[in-house]
Amino acid sequence: MSKQTFARLPGFRDFLPDQLAFREHIFGAWRAVSARYGFQEYDGPPLEPLDLYVEKSGEEIVGQLYHFQDKGDRDVTLRPEMTPSLARILGAHHRSMAKPIRWFSVPQLFRYERQQRGRLREHYQWNVDVIGEEGIGADVEVVAVALDGLRELGLGHDDVLARVSDRRLLTAVLLAIGVEEEKLPGAFSIIDKVERAPADHSLSRLQAEAGLDEASAASTLDLLSQGGLDGVKGRFGDRDEVATELEHIDEYFDSLEALGLGAFVEFDLRIVRGLDYYTGIVFEIFDRERKFRAVSGGGRYDRLLELVGGDPVPAVGFGMGDVVLGELLRDRELAPAHAPQIDYFIVIIGEEHRALALTIAHSQRDRGAAVQYPLREQSVRKQFVAAGNAGARKVIVLGPDEVARGHAVVRDMASGEEREAPLDELR
Amino acid sequence: MSKQTFARLPGFRDFLPDQLAFREHIFGAWRAVSARYGFQEYDGPPLEPLDLYVEKSGEEIVGQLYHFQDKGDRDVTLRPEMTPSLARILGAHHRSMAKPIRWFSVPQLFRYERQQRGRLREHYQWNVDVIGEEGIGADVEVVAVALDGLRELGLGHDDVLARVSDRRLLTAVLLAIGVEEEKLPGAFSIIDKVERAPADHSLSRLQAEAGLDEASAASTLDLLSQGGLDGVKGRFGDRDEVATELEHIDEYFDSLEALGLGAFVEFDLRIVRGLDYYTGIVFEIFDRERKFRAVSGGGRYDRLLELVGGDPVPAVGFGMGDVVLGELLRDRELAPAHAPQIDYFIVIIGEEHRALALTIAHSQRDRGAAVQYPLREQSVRKQFVAAGNAGARKVIVLGPDEVARGHAVVRDMASGEEREAPLDELR
Repeated sequence: MSKQTFARLPGFRDFLPDQLAFREHIFGAWRAVSARYGFQEYDGPPLEPLDLYVEKSGEEIVGQLYHFQDKGDRDVTLRPEMTPSLARILGAHHRSMAKPIRWFSVPQLFRYERQQRGRLREHYQWNVDVIGEEGIGADVEVVAVALDGLRELGLGHDDVLARVSDRRLLTAVLLAIGVEEEKLPGAFSIIDKVERAPADHSLSRLQAEAGLDEASAASTLDLLSQGGLDGVKGRFGDRDEVATELEHIDEYFDSLEALGLGAFVEFDLRIVRGLDYYTGIVFEIFDRERKFRAVSGGGRYDRLLELVGGDPVPAVGFGMGDVVLGELLRDRELAPAHAPQIDYFIVIIGEEHRALALTIAHSQRDRGAAVQYPLREQSVRKQFVAAGNAGARKVIVLGPDEVARGHAVVRDMASGEEREAPLDELR
Repeated sequence: MSKQTFARLPGFRDFLPDQLAFREHIFGAWRAVSARYGFQEYDGPPLEPLDLYVEKSGEEIVGQLYHFQDKGDRDVTLRPEMTPSLARILGAHHRSMAKPIRWFSVPQLFRYERQQRGRLREHYQWNVDVIGEEGIGADVEVVAVALDGLRELGLGHDDVLARVSDRRLLTAVLLAIGVEEEKLPGAFSIIDKVERAPADHSLSRLQAEAGLDEASAASTLDLLSQGGLDGVKGRFGDRDEVATELEHIDEYFDSLEALGLGAFVEFDLRIVRGLDYYTGIVFEIFDRERKFRAVSGGGRYDRLLELVGGDPVPAVGFGMGDVVLGELLRDRELAPAHAPQIDYFIVIIGEEHRALALTIAHSQRDRGAAVQYPLREQSVRKQFVAAGNAGARKVIVLGPDEVARGHAVVRDMASGEEREAPLDELR
């Protein structure tokens, strides 16, 4: 046994056939559901100009990127997310397109994450976006696609939950509490982490970092601790700015109820989403037990195209990665078993019938059947082992006597039943 | 209209939905044919250690690579070809696998080519390999897959031709001519380019660079100018070493005849393939008119796994890129027209029926139909335009009178025929 010199890079995956079959199981569900919603698939290059991300996310993103100078001295990077590429493509093309644009993609994305168990440096992400529609209908459609993608894979409302908030509502509520407008971004970024921090820590950060007074900070945390819509309605529902946003949210939930997806969604004011560019309803989908990180996240980002140099165009979308989802499916025993399968394996008894075997193989393949035959002279026993390894449903045995009579034996591998078939039918 | 700040990198492609549909048309044919031959799909990472390629191809390959140091100071590169990744994966796994291994992949590959019209810096390549079978049967199977992939896309033997040679036969012939063994690699690399150079240029290079004497050089060129098998048989068929190789080649062509693919293949001693690692039969597939570069190339490479640190395992495979193939399909008008299509568009006459529309949409989607509805209140005229843009085959009109009677109108968009359907059937 010679030494094995090369290993793959840490944080990257090989996909052997069983792993690739699982990946395709997920991709297949994503594509099927996208099609049922009338979304069209697009793609961009995995390598993009570095500026495309710096402009949107600031210099700090560079620390997480696989970036370098190419041989033409261009600063380039493997794409860490798809939305900037989408913005770039639409910036060049959307003016001539009927709105709303309904597009999806399944790109592989790359981030140089610190090495941790279960943290990869690449993953595939289902991206679905509705572009050019500012109404709540687009928000509804997008979260419904995400949930149906999960349902298609066997996950139900006992397994997953979409937690939904609205940045416009949160803004109206914080203003009503007495937070000044310029302090909102700071407050948002602390609220984004409120679930993972002790309450007194969040309380002091809201004051020290976001600059809220003690009463506003306490009031904010109090509201978040309930999280639901009722608390908001009870305390602030009589304020016009809040009431307007509440109407939108009610319409959103009513629509999801009409779609039959009401049991999958819950309002939760603590959902903010890390990225600055969201402007309206945002959501994150988690497994109910919260054993895993978020399966999906998205929302409305009406300013994004502007940030990459395009026109202001309303947009709403989400991303769903294959890694967390794959963990969840395995956890729920929803990962299908992989077994190779072909329709026919042709067993050659005498080498003088090899040409006949090839003719039958090719003719059956042309009719759409999956066919194998031994690539060299082999014992009948070995051929039957090979047929088993290939997952052959039937074996065509070219026995000399049968062939002399213009026939072959077709054996069903599951039942063991055999019948004779005329060669003229097979070739 | 705001400025468009960002462009994609030169040599890279965006895939808008019509372009993606064409890509999927090609990928779909590749995957369907692979499955019919019982090949299983695998994949590896687009980013690999730089050494993986330097070891096999030498330092000069680095000039064509998208390579850099990652944040962990590893020398890494975007993969320029798939075979080294396959070798790396099999090096770690093949010992426990039943042979022959029949695998395929559709990776995106990257090379920093000088900018020329029609030269891209990325392409997708169908890679098909049989690993662990040294017999000619594997060589036959592999070229047959490649040809059937082209047939599946509508190309016939009037369109494409596989030109086949055998490095072992060429070796035997050159030795018979009197070329010394150590001069063979030099001679091979000049023969590889003989078609693209004037005869006198090749003649002097065979002497000056490969070190052949004038008679051997002339004899070699004379043989190549005929190219076919008959010349070889006539002049060297009585030599044992040549006769052995000719037997293999005859078996190869007989097998392709038995498969029904004889009209697609031709022996041509001038096919050498640029890469050093081929060890036996090699082939290149061209369009018959030779308007384009090679559509596909491959052959036997029994030493490759050794070169990347693995065991010696026989292997044969090919690559077929999507770019040249796409040009050829367009040239032959075999690129299918792309039009979006959905099953139903639901027209909402009164907004009070929006919830009903959503319920019907979701129920139909759950039954597998592709469905859209207007995401906001719109005039009926605009909704019919949207239905047309979406390629709706049928429109479900929720008219107030019909809904009051528990019905909706279903209109076939092609024929214009209308029928009433009970809502209970639709939702």
